[in-house]
Amino acid sequence: MVPVVSIAGVSGSGKTTLIEKVVSILTEKGYRVGVVKHDAHGFEIDHEGKDSWRHKKAGAGTVALSSKEKFAVIKDVSTEWHPMRIIASYFSDMDVVIMEGYKRLDNQRIEVVRKAVSTGPVTEPNERLLAYATDLDLKTDRPVYDINDSAGIADLVEKEVIKPHTRATVSLIVDGRNITLKPFIEDLLREGVRGMVKSLKGCGDPGEIEIRVKKR
Amino acid sequence: MVPVVSIAGVSGSGKTTLIEKVVSILTEKGYRVGVVKHDAHGFEIDHEGKDSWRHKKAGAGTVALSSKEKFAVIKDVSTEWHPMRIIASYFSDMDVVIMEGYKRLDNQRIEVVRKAVSTGPVTEPNERLLAYATDLDLKTDRPVYDINDSAGIADLVEKEVIKPHTRATVSLIVDGRNITLKPFIEDLLREGVRGMVKSLKGCGDPGEIEIRVKKR
Repeated sequence: MVPVVSIAGVSGSGKTTLIEKVVSILTEKGYRVGVVKHDAHGFEIDHEGKDSWRHKKAGAGTVALSSKEKFAVIKDVSTEWHPMRIIASYFSDMDVVIMEGYKRLDNQRIEVVRKAVSTGPVTEPNERLLAYATDLDLKTDRPVYDINDSAGIADLVEKEVIKPHTRATVSLIVDGRNITLKPFIEDLLREGVRGMVKSLKGCGDPGEIEIRVKKR
Repeated sequence: MVPVVSIAGVSGSGKTTLIEKVVSILTEKGYRVGVVKHDAHGFEIDHEGKDSWRHKKAGAGTVALSSKEKFAVIKDVSTEWHPMRIIASYFSDMDVVIMEGYKRLDNQRIEVVRKAVSTGPVTEPNERLLAYATDLDLKTDRPVYDINDSAGIADLVEKEVIKPHTRATVSLIVDGRNITLKPFIEDLLREGVRGMVKSLKGCGDPGEIEIRVKKR
């Protein structure tokens, strides 16, 4: 799995602005950065009247647009997708993914605490909380960054999230859940699948393999 | 793979309008319909100023939005994705996919020929051409539908594309190419992968399995 960091904080704390700046800095450093945003209130992404909007409006469950430079898909879902499934499915070519708006996940994260909207942090200060970005004078044993120090926070993400990550090479999703694999099982799946696929005509030494299997 | 039909025809022939109507009819019949549109000129899908637009603008290679009802992703690509890869990756839960704008694929298709913009068909009248939808009096041995007969064309898609399709249960994508599998290989992959996964704790009798393997 690609490494992931959440930007946490209450509404109005400035998460989006901070993410925007961190994305820009990490992109300039040469990293491929992805962003996954949870939207509790739903969202409109397409333009009214465009072809894709018309097809979606007519009832299409999934609409994709594809060009030489860009790919987009809009899809109805019956239950919200787990962000780890989204990341496994759509972000495997990124070096790091920044998540916004997922409140109940206890992954590595940075909490933004803005004086104007908060009196203090809202997430648990456990070892997965990398730092606070704040304009308050917080009493804490966790690292504290100025809320505007996007360069410092980008460095922190690089040092604590991207660099330590040993790139996992196998992801397994079963019925929409990302299954955490022990190293032995990961090796077994990787070698088993690569072994099967390499023996197929025209597959040679495959760089990336995806298999989907459905119960009959 | 999910069954696929192209709507072909020159620019201005009314492909999008026909697709819109066929999507609507098939959706009402209870089918889950997807649409993949190739856009030669690139496209803008997101709204300026929205968070996802800001992140993309800041350099994010992939941006996803997720809610209880909807999922969207916008992704930079370095070369255009093959439509069959898009369909294998994003449309596996659809009953049928309608493609628009892919000129060089010789899959099952319906060609729209409109008098106002054409004097005759542009695609080869082989066995994969299911029918013409036209307002011209075409001399052809292929079936001809009135250009406005969206109900007839939806029935044709149901009868010739959706119904005959024996649902393939394994798809294999290697380095972005969809590999056509012989039945023996499909069985081998399905049973091999299901066997490995079923033996894992908590995986029981999996309905749908996805595995991604990258070369180290």
